[in-house]
This record gives sequence, structure tokens and C-alpha cells, in this order.
Amino acid sequence: MELSHYLGVFGGVSLVGISLTAAIFKKIVSHKNTDQRSAYIAKLIREGAMTFLKKEYSVLSVFIALVFAILSFVFTLASGLSFVCGALSSMLAGYIGMKAATRANEVTVIEAKDRGERAAFLTALLGGSVMGFTVATIGLLGLGLIFFLFVENNNYNFLNILVSFGLGASSIALFARVGGGIFTKAADVGADLVGKVEMGIPEDDPRNPAVIADNVGDCVGDTAGMGADIYESYVGSVIGSITLALYFYAGKLEYLSLPIMLCAIGLIASVIGLFSIFLFRTQLSKMLHYGTYVAIACFLAGSYAYLSCMNIDMALFGAITLGALSGVIIGLVTDHYTSGSPIHKLAETSKSGAGTNLIYGLSIGFESVVLPVCAIAIIVFITNQYCGSLFGVSLAAVSMLATVGITMSVDAYGPIADNAGGISEMSGFGPEVRKITDKLDALGNMTAALGKGFAIGSAVFASLALFSAFCLEAKIPALNLLDPVVITGLFIGGTMPFLLSALTMRSVGRAAWKMVIEVRRQFKEIAGLMEGKAEADYARCIEISTDAALWEMLLPGVLTILAPIAIKFGFGAQGNLALGGFLAGATLTGVVLALTMANAGGAWDNAKKYIEAGNFGGKGSDAHKAAVIGDTLGDPFKDTSGPSLNILIKLMSILSLLLATI
Amino acid sequence: MELSHYLGVFGGVSLVGISLTAAIFKKIVSHKNTDQRSAYIAKLIREGAMTFLKKEYSVLSVFIALVFAILSFVFTLASGLSFVCGALSSMLAGYIGMKAATRANEVTVIEAKDRGERAAFLTALLGGSVMGFTVATIGLLGLGLIFFLFVENNNYNFLNILVSFGLGASSIALFARVGGGIFTKAADVGADLVGKVEMGIPEDDPRNPAVIADNVGDCVGDTAGMGADIYESYVGSVIGSITLALYFYAGKLEYLSLPIMLCAIGLIASVIGLFSIFLFRTQLSKMLHYGTYVAIACFLAGSYAYLSCMNIDMALFGAITLGALSGVIIGLVTDHYTSGSPIHKLAETSKSGAGTNLIYGLSIGFESVVLPVCAIAIIVFITNQYCGSLFGVSLAAVSMLATVGITMSVDAYGPIADNAGGISEMSGFGPEVRKITDKLDALGNMTAALGKGFAIGSAVFASLALFSAFCLEAKIPALNLLDPVVITGLFIGGTMPFLLSALTMRSVGRAAWKMVIEVRRQFKEIAGLMEGKAEADYARCIEISTDAALWEMLLPGVLTILAPIAIKFGFGAQGNLALGGFLAGATLTGVVLALTMANAGGAWDNAKKYIEAGNFGGKGSDAHKAAVIGDTLGDPFKDTSGPSLNILIKLMSILSLLLATI
Repeated sequence: MELSHYLGVFGGVSLVGISLTAAIFKKIVSHKNTDQRSAYIAKLIREGAMTFLKKEYSVLSVFIALVFAILSFVFTLASGLSFVCGALSSMLAGYIGMKAATRANEVTVIEAKDRGERAAFLTALLGGSVMGFTVATIGLLGLGLIFFLFVENNNYNFLNILVSFGLGASSIALFARVGGGIFTKAADVGADLVGKVEMGIPEDDPRNPAVIADNVGDCVGDTAGMGADIYESYVGSVIGSITLALYFYAGKLEYLSLPIMLCAIGLIASVIGLFSIFLFRTQLSKMLHYGTYVAIACFLAGSYAYLSCMNIDMALFGAITLGALSGVIIGLVTDHYTSGSPIHKLAETSKSGAGTNLIYGLSIGFESVVLPVCAIAIIVFITNQYCGSLFGVSLAAVSMLATVGITMSVDAYGPIADNAGGISEMSGFGPEVRKITDKLDALGNMTAALGKGFAIGSAVFASLALFSAFCLEAKIPALNLLDPVVITGLFIGGTMPFLLSALTMRSVGRAAWKMVIEVRRQFKEIAGLMEGKAEADYARCIEISTDAALWEMLLPGVLTILAPIAIKFGFGAQGNLALGGFLAGATLTGVVLALTMANAGGAWDNAKKYIEAGNFGGKGSDAHKAAVIGDTLGDPFKDTSGPSLNILIKLMSILSLLLATI
Repeated sequence: MELSHYLGVFGGVSLVGISLTAAIFKKIVSHKNTDQRSAYIAKLIREGAMTFLKKEYSVLSVFIALVFAILSFVFTLASGLSFVCGALSSMLAGYIGMKAATRANEVTVIEAKDRGERAAFLTALLGGSVMGFTVATIGLLGLGLIFFLFVENNNYNFLNILVSFGLGASSIALFARVGGGIFTKAADVGADLVGKVEMGIPEDDPRNPAVIADNVGDCVGDTAGMGADIYESYVGSVIGSITLALYFYAGKLEYLSLPIMLCAIGLIASVIGLFSIFLFRTQLSKMLHYGTYVAIACFLAGSYAYLSCMNIDMALFGAITLGALSGVIIGLVTDHYTSGSPIHKLAETSKSGAGTNLIYGLSIGFESVVLPVCAIAIIVFITNQYCGSLFGVSLAAVSMLATVGITMSVDAYGPIADNAGGISEMSGFGPEVRKITDKLDALGNMTAALGKGFAIGSAVFASLALFSAFCLEAKIPALNLLDPVVITGLFIGGTMPFLLSALTMRSVGRAAWKMVIEVRRQFKEIAGLMEGKAEADYARCIEISTDAALWEMLLPGVLTILAPIAIKFGFGAQGNLALGGFLAGATLTGVVLALTMANAGGAWDNAKKYIEAGNFGGKGSDAHKAAVIGDTLGDPFKDTSGPSLNILIKLMSILSLLLATI
């Protein structure tokens, strides 16, 4: 097949992606909301989220300009420009996705009021799908354009430009995840501690000054942060895979372009999966699962046909299959630990106090590490045995992420449903509507847990692909654990996730503390607030979260970027060996810590909700109080520190790969 | 130097160790206590501890017999016998140390009453030194005898017998640590939850039915458990080092015997350090530090002289120095995080509730990982650069542990002082005596934190030595991280510490729950208990802790032993490669998790004590309640799950080394 044929396929699929996303976006945005109160609330949330994004992006533009200058100086202008494109593409995806999500939330409530559960559910899903397909389409477009423009140039420039693009996406992801995570948890913890615990008013009560900030937080943390995270995995795995293909299949365009083509197949499969959901008429949770399974099945069928047609080694299809399935496996394990029998036991241990709830909850987190990590390890092993090279492992990573259109749509559905619940409560829509949004929200909690598992799994696979690419590019023949330089790197790298977690946990603590002070002040100083006669100063709370997030994201971000550079140059001639060990250590402790945090956090959250549903004494009982304490620790676990680790390991890997090209 | 000369030195030093230990033991045990009440309380504690040890040892005898049969069948009868000797030596050390500690506690109270602070302090220290010097002497004797008996035989048999001895010591250590850890925390948490929180009676109140079990727990967890742990590190590092010497310096007796001779020098240096404490007249805490520094200085001087005399490569002296210093560095970092400014901030965060206390406490634990692990990594790097082989790294491990006599004495001082406080309270000795024992106890908390840091550091060094020995013995030329088999092993190994922690945390939760039920029952059913007119059924509480500990230690123990065997044989021809990766992964995540747990636990404990001392509202304030919740999570962290990880990584390493000799 000629290059032009590939370009044709790539261009066609990209067009499908663009037009579909634009159509859905228009459908969501053009919806009219005639209810004044809900339109007003939604506007507050939307403006808060967009203001945060704009402020964040203006801080980041300084960073981008700085790195652009460095890269242009050290490498080439093309490399610097590619970095800017990578960064801008991530920001653009976040912007479009957020714009849609912060409109879809109000449309969902209106649909719930006017047309019932199914319509509301589909609206929220469509709203999420804008983020899903924006990520998939922009990623495919960006990577594909660079690939087809530069692949026939000399290898060095090509790889360098490609990796710079990835670095751009990665660094934006880090700031988006850390900043978004701090924003959302400062608002959430602050709103709960004063509102729920001290003043005794319910969740999403409009009298709570931090309530809008809390809803904004769901958008900037769970939508924009998660989007940037998954976008980075998507881009990183493709780059890692292409780098490996350059070594193992130099000059063979059908192999070099395979990662890009798999993404194209995955995009089409995701479109089919999304529309298949509209055809199912069963429980909502099953509809989401089925849609994902349809997409994976179409992707596998499409890949099989493509590999056969192109005469590509069919052993690679084994790797593709395992990669696609591994996402499902990790999802099922996460589902068990965060909604199965462990949750009922955890809720029961809350009866004897916060101490036993904490001990048991953390033990669930620890245990939940074992199966997913062993599954990943075994998939790596089998893939390699079967394909005979690390290229297979990297293809598994690409394959896991190829159907990102549908997985990210399901993911982004969650915060929209959550927001819809908040808007309905604050607009006083009554129990009928609230019942629907509660149901949609509960479903969103499930998809959020699954999404986190998927994000961690994909981060590990992407990091492994980038790590292998780094070793090849750095011309390291072997990374021998018997070499003390490698051991030294391994141990130092192993501490990085703990350092980052310490910093981000503390940031949340500090920011939440400021929020508590402000909310207490408003309740005290604004006359009539508690009686519902005066309006709270929502904007001030949003400002506190925004400022805290922007300030507190800087140190973790800068440390993550400087650490690999310090290792590389600190160890002189042995820099690459030390850096290799460093990456392996950080990836290992990063994934186990991230899984512990995500699942312990999810377990505490759901145990609390299980008690609130009326079990073991229900709301206000001693068991509930104990469960709330567990949840407070779980909040930064699952929404700030845990997710930041995904980015940590990917960003350090891609940066190392770039350093190796020096 | 002839073999007989070495034997002479070894025999002489061993004799010094035996006679000194026997003399101190006799001095402690022969002390008469004429106060009936305190003698009675002390007898209850002593009998409880000894009953636990006897039951534990009878369960373990079945295990020992089983492994003896397997080893004799797979290897030789000598190997099986050596395993039994290793196991019995650890049990003997535990027995003697406990016997002394459970007499020294009451003698310390009497000395505090009759002769004041200094006399009581020195008594507690002497009591602890029985454990310290028993560990050092028995270790030296056992390893030395095997070394000198078999070193001139063929290498294979020699190494196999030596490693079997280590495996014996290791497996006993695992059960002692896990069992002791569960015993002590079940009693502690149970006593606190009902006694302090529900009934509002103070710590160590004789009306609390679990109070004796709590004091017994200090002995079996902190004395016997810690002793077995350090004994294992001591034995493991020497075995690892001798194995490496066999490769790098085959046939050179002065190098082969160097680890043993360093232990002999360290034993003499520890004796000098111990007695130097009697000469200092300053703050008690400084006396303990100075004693340790004197011992280290004497050890370094002695080693320097020895290496010069024997014409041994002086580069190795650099490794010895770094090893000895690394213990001090880890101790200082631990001290900062568990008693410095972080504690005051942690206590302050308790003001806004348990949530912020938990978030901040855990962030201290995470941060405390960074410096010690990086220090270890850099010491490994420098040692290797300087000595040119991994033998240097293993010597650093031996050197860190050579002065075990003094470090373990200081360690074992803690629980004796703690017990003394309990006995004084229960015997109604009044505020004067209590003030002294409180001061000794506070000092014990500091030494306990340092001891935990030392135990973790020594475990890492011992594991690294054993790991290198394993790779050499398994004839692995390189353990390449680019090989997917190694990566698979690395990831699976990395989950082991999380699995073990999940199991042990849950065991503590279950056992504490049983204790809570029993203590509540006694308060309800025993008439006059709360008024102090009837005596509680202490024995029943001890029985609950004992049974729980013995049952719950089995699963973690068996899993730890089976895992490396499963990896080795599950991966067939690639078994050793996978096992190498597995060990590296387990060691890395084990050390970071152990440090997090030890230091977060210590921080929560000390923040609670800081508030109890009258800060931020003092006892009974909201800040205090929040701090108690943090401490409840910290209890199993620092005394059960964290310490168990030290054993996990050492036991799996030594077992792998044995598997490699097949």
C-alpha cells in the first residue's frame, strides 16, 4: 500500500470523527433551557469552570513558551513547535469537552424533568461523548499528521518531533490532573466539613457557599483532568509503539503505521459502540457495558481484517486482543472492590468506629492491587512470548486505548450526571426529578471507579511502551538489576510517587482548610443565609479553589519534570542506566500506590453511600459518622493523589525518551 | 593466619558475649521484689507472655518438623539439621530476652520507687541488653560454628548448610513478627476503644480487663518480635556477604571470614558502648545516643586495625564506614518525622477534625520515605564505585548490623519502660513514681521509632546482600529489565507487600473486634468491676489475643513461603529470572511501604501524645478525639503490618537463595 492510501484512510476516519463530534456538540449546545433558576445555576457552574480553565491556561502558556524556547534551542524549531502543538491539542480537547459538559449537565436535568430517565441518561452520555470523541479525534489527527508528514524524513528528526508532541500533551496533563484534583477536593471537603457536618444541611444545598465550587470541581477534576490524563495515555502509547516499530520493522510502512491505523479502527468502532447504546433497552448500567463491549468486538474484528489484508504477522493480533481485554479485566476487579461484598463489610466495620473503618478500608485498597497488577504482568509476559518482541507489548497498550472514544465517553458521563443532580437540587425541582438524577449519579459513581482503573491500567501500558522505547533509543543493551547504578536508580525512582503523593495530599489539606474558614465566615457574616433569604457568595469560594489549585500544582509539576533531568545528568556517563532504573522503580511503586488510593477511596465513598441508603443505622448514625471520616481521607486519595500518579509515570517516561535523543 | 587463629578469636569473643549476657541476666532475675501488688501484676504479665511464647513455639514446632523433613529430602540431612538449629537459635534468643524483659519491668518500677530515675533507667537498659547481647552472641556462635566447621568442605554443601540456618531464623522471625504484631495491637486497640473511649478510664487502669494483655503485647510484639526481626537481619546479611565472598575471593580465608570477624569486633564494641552509658551523666536520651556512637566508633577503629593487620583491601573499609553511618542517618530522619516539627503541625491539623489529621499524617508518612531510601540508594552506589563489587555493599550491611548488641539493647529498653509504667499505675505507686516511669516511657517511644527505622534499613541491606548472592548462585549473568520475564516478576513481586499488609491489617481489625466484645461483656457482667471492687478476668483477654495471633499468623506466613516457590517453578526454565525480578520488586515496594507505615504510625502516636501533654486543648478536646482516630490507624501500621514487611523481603530473599542451590 502506498503512503497516499494510508493517508486516505486516516483522513476519512478523522473527518468522521470531526463531523460526529461537531454534530453532537451542536445538538447539546443548541438546546434551549426556559427554566430560569436552573439556567442561572448552570451558568454559575459553567462560568466557574471556564474561568478556571482560562486562568489555568494562561499560567500554562508561560510554561509552554519556556519549554518551547528550550526545545528549539536544544533540538530544532520543529521540535519546539511540535511540543506547542501537543500542549495546545490537549488544551483544546479539554476546552471543547468542558464546554459541552457544562451545557449537558443542565440539559440532562431538563430532559429528566420533561421526558424522563432514558432521555436524561442518553443526553448525559451524549454530553460525555463530546469529550470522548474530541480526545480520540484530536489525538488521531495530531499524531497522524506528524507521522505522515515526517515518516519519510530521516528517523532522528521524525522521532524527536513525535516525542516532543507527546511531551506537550503530557505536561498539560500533569497540571490539569494535579490542579483539577486540588480544586475539586478543596471544594468538596470544605463544603462537606462545614455544610454537612457542622451546619447539618444536605448535599448540594444552595445555602452552602461552596456548593457551586463543588460542582465546578466535578467538571475541572473529573472531566477536564481525566480527559487530559487519557489523552496523554493515548498519545504516549502510540508514540512508544511507533518508536519500537522503527527498530524492529525499520522501513516497513505497514508496521510503522500500524499504531495509527489501529487508532483509526478504534475510532470507528467507538462510533458504532456509542450508537449501539441507543438501541439497547435494558438496565442503564448494562447499556453502558454493552456499548463498550460492542466497540471492543468491532475493534477486534476490524483489526483482524486489517492485519489479514496487509499481510501483517498475525501473532500481533494476539497482543491486540490481550490489550483490549486487559482494560475489561481491570474494570471488573475495580468494580468488585468498590461495589461488591467488600463494601458491605466495610460499611459494617464502621459500626465500631472510624478506626476499624479506616483499617478495613485501607486493607481493601492494598488487596485490590494484587489482581490487576498480576494481570498486567502476565499479559506482558504472554504477549512477549507470543510476539517475540516488546513491540507486541506496546501494541497491547495501543489496543487498550484505541477504543478511547467510547471509554472516555462513559467516563465523562459521570460528572455530568453528578452535576445534573446538583442543579436539580438547587433549582428545587422536587423528588421526582431528583430520583432520576440520583439514579444517573449512582451509575456515574460506578463508571468513575471503572474509569480510574482504566486510567491506571492504560498509564502502566503506555509507560511500559515508552520505557522500552527509551531503552532502545538510549542504546542501552541491557538494564541489569545486578548493576548498582540501576539499583540506585530503581530505589530513587521508587520514592517519586510517594513524594508526589505527600505534596498533593498536603495541598488538598491546606486548600480545604482555607475553604472551611471562608464557608464558616459566610455563614456567620451573611445575614439570612441559613434561612435561605440571602444568597451566598459563590464566586469567592470558586476563587479560593482556583487560586489554591493554580499555586499548588506548580511544585509537584516542576519536581516531576526536573527529577529525570537531574538523574540523567547527575549520573554522568551512567545517566541512561540510572534513568532506566529510575523509570522502572517509579512505574512500579506508582501503579501499586495509584491502585491502592483509587480503590480504597472508591470503597470508602461507596461504603458511606451504602450506609446513607439506610443500612447499619443510615444517615446520622455513629456508623455513618465513622464512614464520613473514611471518605474524607478517601477523597484526595481517589481524586487528587492517585490520579496524579498516572501522569507522573507517563510524563517521566516520555521526558526520558526525549532526553535519550540528545 | 591459620584457621585455628580465627577460631581462637571467634571463641574468645563468643565467651565474652555468653558470660556477659549470663551475668546481666542473673543480676536482673535475682532481684527481689517485696511489694506484693506489683509482684502480682508483673507475674500476670510474665505468665501471659511466656504462655504465648510456649503456645507459639509448639505451633511452630510442627512447621519446623515439616520443613526439616522437606530439606533433608531435597538437600541433605545436614541442611535439615541446620535449618532446625537456625529456628531453635531464634526461639532461644526470644525466650531468654523475654524472660529477662518480663522481670526487668518490675525491677525497674521498684528501682524507680526506691532509688530514683537514673537507677530505674539503667535497670531497664540492662534488662534490654539481655535481648541485645543474646541476639548478638547466639548469632555469632551459630554462624561461626557452621562457618568454621564447614568452610574447608566443598563449597556447595557449605553454602547450602549456611543458608538453611538463615532460613530457619527467617521463618521463625516471620511468625514472631506477624503473631506478636497481631497480639499486641488486638489488645491495645481493644483496650483503648472500650476503656478509654467508651468507659472513660485512663490508660493502664487495672479495671480494664484488657490491660494486662496490652502489657503482655508490648513484650511479645516489641521485644520478642523485634528481636527475631533484627536477629534475622544479622544472620541474613552475614550469609549474603559470605556467599558473595565465595565468588569474589574464593579460597581467601581472610575475606571469607571477614563478615564473621566484623561481627566479633562489633560485639566487643557494643560491650564497650553499653558500659560507656554508665559513665555519662547527662540527659537520658543523650546517654543512649552517646552509647551507640561510642560503640560505632570503637567498631570502626577495631575494623580499621583488623583490616590493616590482615592486609585486606582498604577500599572495603569505606563500605564498612558507610554501612555503620547509614543506620545513624536513617535514625535521624525517622527522628525528625516522628518527633520534630511535623508532629506539631500534625497535632494542629487535628483541630479541624479527624479528616485533616488523617490526610496530613499520611502525607508525613509518604514524605518520610524519600530521604532514607535515597540515602540507601546512594550508599549502594558509592560503595560499589569504591569497592568495585557487590561484596562491598554486603559488607556495608554486615557493618550496619555488627553493633547489634547495643542497638537492640536500646530497642528492647522501650517496652520494658512501657511495662514499668503500666505496673506502677496498676500497683498504685502514686504520682512520684509514675512521673519517672512516664519519662522513661517517653524516651522509649523515641527509641522505638529509631529502632523501626533501623530494622527497615537493615532489612533492605540484608535483602540486597541476599539478592546479589541469589543472582550469583543462580548463575544469572544479568537481570535485564528489558526482558519481559524480569518485568513480569518485578510487578508480581511488587504486589506482595500490599497483599501481606492487607492480610495483617485485616487480622488486627478482626482480633481487635473480638477483644472489644469481650471487654464490653466483662464491664457489663462482672459486678463491681467499674467501682474497683471486683477483679477483671485478665486471662480471658490474653487468651483471645493469643488465639487470634496464632491463627492469623498462619496465612500470611504460608503465602510468603509459597510465593517464591510458585514463581520459581511456575516460570519453568526462566524461573530464576522471574524470581530475581520478583525479589527486586518486593524489596522496593516493601521498603517504601514499611517506611510509610512506620513513620506515619509514629507521627500519629506522637501527635496524640503531644496533644495529651496539654497542647491544642489537651485530653478530651475535639483535637484529641481526632488524634486518637489517627492513632488507631497508625497502631497496626507501625506495629503489625509495617514490621512484617521487613521479614517478608528478607525471608523471600533467603528462600530464593536456597532455591537457587537446587
